[in-house]
Formats: sequence, C-alpha cells, structure tokens
Amino acid sequence: MMRKGRIAIGGSIQEVVQQEDGVQLSDGRTYKEEEVTWLPPVEPQTTFVLGLNYADHASELAFEPPKEPLVFLKGPNTFIGHNAETKRPEEATHMHYECELAVVIGKQGKHIKQAEAYDYVEGYTIANDYAIRDYLENYYRPNLKVKNRDTCTPIGPWITSKEAIQDPMNLALRTKVNGVTTQEGTTKDMVFSIPFLIEYLSSFMTLQPDDVILTGTPKGLAKVNAGDIVEAEVEGLGTLKNTIIAKPE
Amino acid sequence: MMRKGRIAIGGSIQEVVQQEDGVQLSDGRTYKEEEVTWLPPVEPQTTFVLGLNYADHASELAFEPPKEPLVFLKGPNTFIGHNAETKRPEEATHMHYECELAVVIGKQGKHIKQAEAYDYVEGYTIANDYAIRDYLENYYRPNLKVKNRDTCTPIGPWITSKEAIQDPMNLALRTKVNGVTTQEGTTKDMVFSIPFLIEYLSSFMTLQPDDVILTGTPKGLAKVNAGDIVEAEVEGLGTLKNTIIAKPE
Repeated sequence: MMRKGRIAIGGSIQEVVQQEDGVQLSDGRTYKEEEVTWLPPVEPQTTFVLGLNYADHASELAFEPPKEPLVFLKGPNTFIGHNAETKRPEEATHMHYECELAVVIGKQGKHIKQAEAYDYVEGYTIANDYAIRDYLENYYRPNLKVKNRDTCTPIGPWITSKEAIQDPMNLALRTKVNGVTTQEGTTKDMVFSIPFLIEYLSSFMTLQPDDVILTGTPKGLAKVNAGDIVEAEVEGLGTLKNTIIAKPE
Repeated sequence: MMRKGRIAIGGSIQEVVQQEDGVQLSDGRTYKEEEVTWLPPVEPQTTFVLGLNYADHASELAFEPPKEPLVFLKGPNTFIGHNAETKRPEEATHMHYECELAVVIGKQGKHIKQAEAYDYVEGYTIANDYAIRDYLENYYRPNLKVKNRDTCTPIGPWITSKEAIQDPMNLALRTKVNGVTTQEGTTKDMVFSIPFLIEYLSSFMTLQPDDVILTGTPKGLAKVNAGDIVEAEVEGLGTLKNTIIAKPE
C-alpha cells in the first residue's frame, strides 16, 4: 500500500513513505511515527468543506439534508499535522470535533463527469474539522470564527493512494476522545458522494492538484476540552491524533 | 510612486515596476501597458472578501448594515489580471461588477491592534469582484457559484505601495461600463475600516504576506453582458480594465 506524508526534520521539509510502523525518507533513513514532526501531507490549495453532508448528522442538528452541496472554503492557516496541538479558544463552550474523509485532487480538471471523477483523485487522508459552534450564525455557511481558526484542522498523517482503497464510499469513520469511542459512521451515508461532488465543483470551477475536499462528518458530535486527546480514524487510512490545549494568551 | 505588477513575457513570469506610461522589467526593458500579458499582481494566499461593507450598498440591497464584518474566502481559481477576459455564465441573468479596494498584507501577524494595522500592509490594488446573483441564497455568505467562478475576479494592474497613499480610507471608487460611469463611491463610506478589519481578522487567524482583503463595494450595481468593457478605478491606484465574454461551452 502506497502511503506518503510530510515531516519536518533536520531543518527541512521532507516527503516520507510508510514503512512498517514508521516513516522512511528518500535517503532510506527510517524513524518511528512518534519521533518525527508531522506536517499536513498536502499543502492544500483550494480546500472545499462540506456542510451537513451526512443525513444522520443533519438530523442530529435538526436540519433537513440539503438539496445541493453546501460548500465553503478554508484558508491554509487552519491546518496542522498529525500529533500536533489544537488551541481551544478560552471563551468557547461548544467546541466539537468532526472526523472526515478528505479527498486529495491529483489532476487539473473542469466539467468532470461522475464516471471519470476518480481519475482526478490522487488519494485520501483524514481531517478533523473542529467547529467552534459558539460563533455559528448560519449552519449553511459557517463563518471564519467557527471553521477557520489557526490549528483547528488537523489533517493526515498519510495520503493513501486511491489504488489502495477499494471503495471510498464504504469506509468506517470513528472518533475517540481519551480512548473512548464517541463518533461512529460510514462514508456510505454521505448525502453527496465523492464523484457527485467532483462533478458539481468542477462544473463551475477548475479543480487543481492539491485541492482538497473535506466531505463532511457523520452523527456523534461531542465537546472537547483542554487536555483531551482526540483520535480520528478512517478505515484504511490510519489514525489522526491530536491534543487540545488551552489557547495561550 | 512605487508600483509593481506581474506579467507573463518570453515564457516566464516577471515582476515589473511602473515607468511613465509603461512597465519596466528588472533588466531595464520597457513595454507599453497594452503590449504585455498582465497577471494578478499578487498570488493571493488567503483572500478575505467583505460582504455589505458599504452602508449605501447594503441599503441598495434592502439590508441593515452588518454589526460584525461579514467575511468569506475566495480560491485562487477566480483571479485574473488586468486586460483579461471574464467568462459570463450563459445561464446568468444577474451578473454584476463590484469595484473594490484590495489590501495586500505584507507581514505576518496575529492579534494586531488597529493602531499598528498599517504596519502589516504592503500596499493596495483594485479588484472587480463579479457576482452571479442568480445563485444567491444568502447575502451574508454567498456560495461558490456566486463568488468563486473561474475568471470572475480581475485584480490589478499594480500594487501601489502604502507609502504612496496618504489615506486609504478617503479614496474615490468608480466603475465605467463601455465608457459610461455607472458606480461611484468613496472608501470613506466603509462600515468597517481597514484597521478594524485587520484587528478583527487577526484576532482569531494569523495573517500572512500576500493575504488579500477585498473591502467591499459601494452602491451602484449594474448588470454586465458579453462584449462589455468594464473599468474599475480607485483613486491613486489606476484603472483595472477587463472584458466580459460569453462562456464557451
């Protein structure tokens, strides 16, 4: 299985591949996963984020599932790598994790049809799309204080190549907080599938390599607090772990 | 006055400075403005876009001015340079120009106070933030079909350094369609000033060099059609010209 990531080591940024339980640099050196500083496995260009893309999650929030994809954008400031720390705003009372399958685009395209959509995919990774719901005015397009704060979107650790994933629309998702499972779902329950989203977005925008689509989260939100260790898992992609810390003033 | 731009020439991208009526490359060669292929003068990193940031424009749309900045993000696909063509979606009936002062950030910062805000500004340019209002569901955070289509945000031609602009909060804005003035306003009428916006955004996000803030548009919207030549002017910054074309299928 081909998995690649990005780490900071020896004062530079290096691409690595997965090697048994560790990472391997292009010069052959290997390290354990815990020994290295993980970066996001992709430097996202345009990042698309789906709102309410799981029917059970929409229902949990007392909404009808949307008739058309609800999409907004994220800026690069919000991303951090695996094993890093997410700063919890001191004043927040409703900070929730959101485990998501992230689709990484591998090829430029416009007016892509569903049948060819996977040709434009490089692979998949995991995102934890934290939301600070205190600031929510509008579920259909959350503002930047809800969804775009520094450090609030851990992503990684690996991009798993699409060839290694038999059916991305049939993967289990799971979130654990301090070792206890609090969210479980499956990508089968997406309202708008990956091929649908690629056709939809590319109908009016050019998709580019390293664009990323965060495909939404299933039911099972729970609050997180400083000190919590949060693990987001997607079947076949591994585990994205991070720690919530109090935001230093 | 220091003005810089980016052009494509001889198979490469070059930075240029303004020289009388033309552009000058770093090797000293000069060209007329009309002879070169203009690119956006900045490759925007995070692009912040203000909604309803002029009271007269909010009133034109029958809205109360907002109590807090209404901000959304744009992706890089939407930007084109001076003298380029904007594709009008065939099915659109309400495509409007929006002449805007664009603030280019020059220095990384977080928790910036209004009194120091201009220290973080590199300079200013002009943006024409076309809106396809047919797809508007929500004025407070327009969706990607309204505000993020390919070619729908001309920007440029120049970044004028902040030192050359005595008061960015007192600049006339004007749009001409086929030579006829259709929109006039002044940056004095912004609801949230440039220093306010920089303090606001940096209170929860790190601002980075080449981030861009599109500060909103005053009253005076009008529809554009294929063949229209649209000139957006901001006092002291020049004229950003582009042509509307029918979107080829």
